[in-house]
Amino acid sequence: MNKVILLDKRPVGKPQLSDFKFIEEEIPQPGKAEMLLKTAYVSVDPYLRGRMIDAKSYALPFQLHQPVSSGIVAEVTESNLEGFSKGDFVSGMLEWKEFQKSDGNGLYKVDATLAPLSAYLGILGMTGLTAYFGLTEIGKPQKGETLVVSGAAGAVGSVVGQIGKILGCRVIGIAGSDEKVEMLKSKFGFDEAINYKTTKNMKDAIAEACPNGVDLYFDNVGGNISDGVLANINKFARVMVCGSISVYNETTVPMGPRVESTLVKNSALMQGFIVGNFAAKFPAGIAQLSTWLKEGKLTYSETIVEGFELIPQAFIDLFEGKNMGKMIVKI
Amino acid sequence: MNKVILLDKRPVGKPQLSDFKFIEEEIPQPGKAEMLLKTAYVSVDPYLRGRMIDAKSYALPFQLHQPVSSGIVAEVTESNLEGFSKGDFVSGMLEWKEFQKSDGNGLYKVDATLAPLSAYLGILGMTGLTAYFGLTEIGKPQKGETLVVSGAAGAVGSVVGQIGKILGCRVIGIAGSDEKVEMLKSKFGFDEAINYKTTKNMKDAIAEACPNGVDLYFDNVGGNISDGVLANINKFARVMVCGSISVYNETTVPMGPRVESTLVKNSALMQGFIVGNFAAKFPAGIAQLSTWLKEGKLTYSETIVEGFELIPQAFIDLFEGKNMGKMIVKI
Repeated sequence: MNKVILLDKRPVGKPQLSDFKFIEEEIPQPGKAEMLLKTAYVSVDPYLRGRMIDAKSYALPFQLHQPVSSGIVAEVTESNLEGFSKGDFVSGMLEWKEFQKSDGNGLYKVDATLAPLSAYLGILGMTGLTAYFGLTEIGKPQKGETLVVSGAAGAVGSVVGQIGKILGCRVIGIAGSDEKVEMLKSKFGFDEAINYKTTKNMKDAIAEACPNGVDLYFDNVGGNISDGVLANINKFARVMVCGSISVYNETTVPMGPRVESTLVKNSALMQGFIVGNFAAKFPAGIAQLSTWLKEGKLTYSETIVEGFELIPQAFIDLFEGKNMGKMIVKI
Repeated sequence: MNKVILLDKRPVGKPQLSDFKFIEEEIPQPGKAEMLLKTAYVSVDPYLRGRMIDAKSYALPFQLHQPVSSGIVAEVTESNLEGFSKGDFVSGMLEWKEFQKSDGNGLYKVDATLAPLSAYLGILGMTGLTAYFGLTEIGKPQKGETLVVSGAAGAVGSVVGQIGKILGCRVIGIAGSDEKVEMLKSKFGFDEAINYKTTKNMKDAIAEACPNGVDLYFDNVGGNISDGVLANINKFARVMVCGSISVYNETTVPMGPRVESTLVKNSALMQGFIVGNFAAKFPAGIAQLSTWLKEGKLTYSETIVEGFELIPQAFIDLFEGKNMGKMIVKI
């Protein structure tokens, strides 16, 4: 029998185990031009919380009494689909099921010899690609430029900073604890890091950390932190505004200093994006990131728990901060 | 003798005739690799007011007791400079003098057979080029898209709207009087126009005028008007934030709704610019605009007064709104 996890109730406040329901069903038979997949690694992510409520977002909400889906790496166990063979591994948005069939739509093959399979859910998956495409396609960093990253200790921010260093930038991270600040410098190679919780004047702190001004700002957080960074941008600066699911669920728009005059004075660009905008280039992005990973130029943190039954708990634990880096369930 | 106009005092409030001083000096002799220019048309512009005060801006302030400069079309009357011959006309930033010498730096030749010489100070000059490059290089309009223009009846906005129509967009203008609204539709071919002074809810007004949402927003004004437009932008929208000298002289930054979530939700771009960013492409821009002008696809308004002595008064009259379209002094 095949184990499946359904969304049974829409969470109110922090998700509970009782919001989910385990059922068993027959293992499906792949038809013509289909394959059977066996789930290997499941990504649990805070943004899934947003899809569990019934609100307009960039992604459709999950249906009640239907399987939850997230980023998954799975093994092909049978294939009637050209281009996919038994033993291949694929990654993409799949359902929380031990086995499922697929026509290959939205999936891409991953190479277990290039990197551990779990990496395809993090540094070689959505978070790594978000960092890579946001920085390179929108930011277009030039050697010697100064890059500031907010949310720098997160799965996206830590990769942004490392890529910035690879590309020859001076990199300054902003994070929320002294431990994270230390880790940014020691583990991820940031040149400087700022603890925003102990910083009174972010504008001055950025000015001090960035004596040549800010050419690139990768923004994972917005708000007052961004105001302090924007007050220090240079001519032709590029501000990458990274999709954070939190903004989709805002009911009122917060107020802040208008940015028009800053953008005009500096001929600066501010661009919102989600990683899906670059879907056509994912294979090239994964190739570049895995090369850097093999060369030892990129590092990452992950927390792996084991067992299909632990998927809902791993998801719930995200909101208690029990993970260090990317949270992944190995099946 | 050569007539020259100096800035004699820094204006306080509305500029006065007494802020300027006429002097006479010898007509200069062009040296090696220089030419002598005779002023033909002088552009007077509101932004010059900003350069008359001693404040940091993108352009240096005018020096007291020195000649004022602005956009000028001049005739070459003597030339020791390769590439420039007697009888040629040139345009660029020049001083308020009847005659002046130049090494050609920052000047480009203009063709009196393509368009009236005064056009090189407006539709084929800074205002036309601002409209053209802002819209085409940043906005990259696609046929069928919806373009909203604020400050639509101005020298820049009216050209933006017309280029939008040429490129196949549906164009909606925002202006400050019923007369301007009428003119946008009848003279400049806008599909719709909104009088912001008689509009209670700009968001709803834009939604009604733009049933398919807003793909392109050329912003000359900012503030509440922009808030209403931004609330209606589509996925992959481009917001061109056009340099208005007013923002350079702001002492406090006004507050408004934060734009990050709007940009992320729509993967939208917001880009500040000044026309100088595209200086390398000016000849191509002038060629395209003059082609459209000859084909009758572009029109413009100008107010021409005649006489070197009238330059300061024409400048002062700008602040009384005595001009219709571009204000130019013919010498």
